[in-house]
Amino acid sequence: MSRKNENTTPIPGEFEIISRYFAPLAKDPGAFNLTDDAATISPPVGSDLVVTLDTLVAGVHFFDHDPVDLIAQKALRVNLSDLAAKGAKPIGYLLSLALAEGWSTNWLECFSRGLADDQKEFNISLLGGDTVQTPGPLTLSITAFGVVPKGHMVRRNTLSVGDTLFVSGTIGDAALGLHIRQNAKSAAGWNLDSETRDLLQQRYLKPEPRLKLSQTLINYASAAMDVSDGLIGDLAKMLSPAGQRAEISCDDIPLSSAAKTIIAQQPDAIELVLTGGDDYEILIAVASENVNKFKQSADRAGVAVTQIGHIFDGEKGIDVLDGEGRYREFMHGSYAHF
Amino acid sequence: MSRKNENTTPIPGEFEIISRYFAPLAKDPGAFNLTDDAATISPPVGSDLVVTLDTLVAGVHFFDHDPVDLIAQKALRVNLSDLAAKGAKPIGYLLSLALAEGWSTNWLECFSRGLADDQKEFNISLLGGDTVQTPGPLTLSITAFGVVPKGHMVRRNTLSVGDTLFVSGTIGDAALGLHIRQNAKSAAGWNLDSETRDLLQQRYLKPEPRLKLSQTLINYASAAMDVSDGLIGDLAKMLSPAGQRAEISCDDIPLSSAAKTIIAQQPDAIELVLTGGDDYEILIAVASENVNKFKQSADRAGVAVTQIGHIFDGEKGIDVLDGEGRYREFMHGSYAHF
Repeated sequence: MSRKNENTTPIPGEFEIISRYFAPLAKDPGAFNLTDDAATISPPVGSDLVVTLDTLVAGVHFFDHDPVDLIAQKALRVNLSDLAAKGAKPIGYLLSLALAEGWSTNWLECFSRGLADDQKEFNISLLGGDTVQTPGPLTLSITAFGVVPKGHMVRRNTLSVGDTLFVSGTIGDAALGLHIRQNAKSAAGWNLDSETRDLLQQRYLKPEPRLKLSQTLINYASAAMDVSDGLIGDLAKMLSPAGQRAEISCDDIPLSSAAKTIIAQQPDAIELVLTGGDDYEILIAVASENVNKFKQSADRAGVAVTQIGHIFDGEKGIDVLDGEGRYREFMHGSYAHF
Repeated sequence: MSRKNENTTPIPGEFEIISRYFAPLAKDPGAFNLTDDAATISPPVGSDLVVTLDTLVAGVHFFDHDPVDLIAQKALRVNLSDLAAKGAKPIGYLLSLALAEGWSTNWLECFSRGLADDQKEFNISLLGGDTVQTPGPLTLSITAFGVVPKGHMVRRNTLSVGDTLFVSGTIGDAALGLHIRQNAKSAAGWNLDSETRDLLQQRYLKPEPRLKLSQTLINYASAAMDVSDGLIGDLAKMLSPAGQRAEISCDDIPLSSAAKTIIAQQPDAIELVLTGGDDYEILIAVASENVNKFKQSADRAGVAVTQIGHIFDGEKGIDVLDGEGRYREFMHGSYAHF
């Protein structure tokens, strides 16, 4: 089944790829060392399994020339971010890998090394998957599994009027990092040093799933979701059409010093910050009686959370206030890859 | 988020697609009507969850111009076939759908109708997934979930010397059906009537997962796998490198009357039958003390099973005997899409 590429290096077939690059990642006994056509998962008694799936296409969700280990890690981390927002502790994942023409064993080595490093960091195992070839772009789909106490997955649409809105970490860095990559000329006007540019781009390349916040969310959140398509657009997804309105204030949005530097020079960059996407922070609604306990718990977990607004009664929508208390309008509600 | 296509019909965005075409398929309460970023699964106490994933790329695993409902059903059924071979009862699935340029609402309607019909037939629910667009070919990845009694998933590599080999249904029909599609000229020499041609092609388009056999496998199989890449190649995957050899006889392979007609005219078509793939029948090893009970149980389940050979001690490999007891050699061990 081996074929040759131009350099006459033998190209491994599907089963050689599995045994060489992926079987070493399948440490969970339920993965059967990837020698079977299925895996088994046994969530602990008293828990629910939480499952989520994200698909990433080269040229759409990442760049073909991104560092290969980071492509692998981004595919994994965007799923772990979903689990974190649902209060779930991750346990493992399935990988669907559609390799584009021209792939190499070196590419697979970097890719599987990226997965191996993150498996260690997040204490998870590859459980199975499928590797195929495609005449189209590299396409990755990861199904991630986590566990929550039975019936306690943190939902997206369960917030109430009166809830306070929080967000983890800082918002907008990844979108600004992407802007730097895609619009080098306009970004040059920001006069950032190379370290700051790298930091923002790194935030785009390597999301940080806020798994340390899972237990805090289980205990104190009314609702939560991870911010992947932009803060404003994702917040809209949390609201009930029956009558929930959110108010957030631009001045309260947590910003990195890099983002602050940019906005100081170009105030309308706040739009990119609020709608740009790829944050992989968590947006959380907390009932008033839980606000203090939530903040203390997040503090103990070592994750910064910032109050950005609240939910009130009214027609479904979002009011964004600027520093002077005026309503702001944005061109784009959210970024959609679709 | 709506855009327009050339016919000025509004093209729905991701969230409209989900609510219009996929939310009606998400009947399981753990799917939260597809309004969240994850789903929950609670396997019954005393059971393991069995998970499997297959990825299909247009032009590689199916044809772009295949009937759309059958594309959906094939993607689902190849996964259900894996569950069947593992003794698992299916409960639901996640769908990763990467839509190629030029997709239409009509296409999505046919696609979701195909899924809806199969959900009814197999009593399963869509649980979640992701819909994206790709500049490449239509790419489908399905993660299917089933349950087995705890610790009883039927494995692939657990057969023993002395086991008898069985296969469900008939072998080779799908490969012959594909050959008819791809080599109309050479297939014309077979002088098949149009009904027979359709029947073979249907076997390629719409696999029949042998779920009725699941309990029989749990009770009596030493090992099992579904035949997707050709009987010979898949049988090789069941053997232990430590020393297990299989002997099968061409005369014992269960053939449809269509396949018999073809082989009568062109005896070497047996190679295509044995190595062609896409059968989605189940290959089963049964210990001698279980053979009678296995046959009776399969009979009660209403699934034809045929004894095709046995496992003996020796260097890992497969001996294929023809009608006169001579060894046969094949050019291709198995068909690999990869």
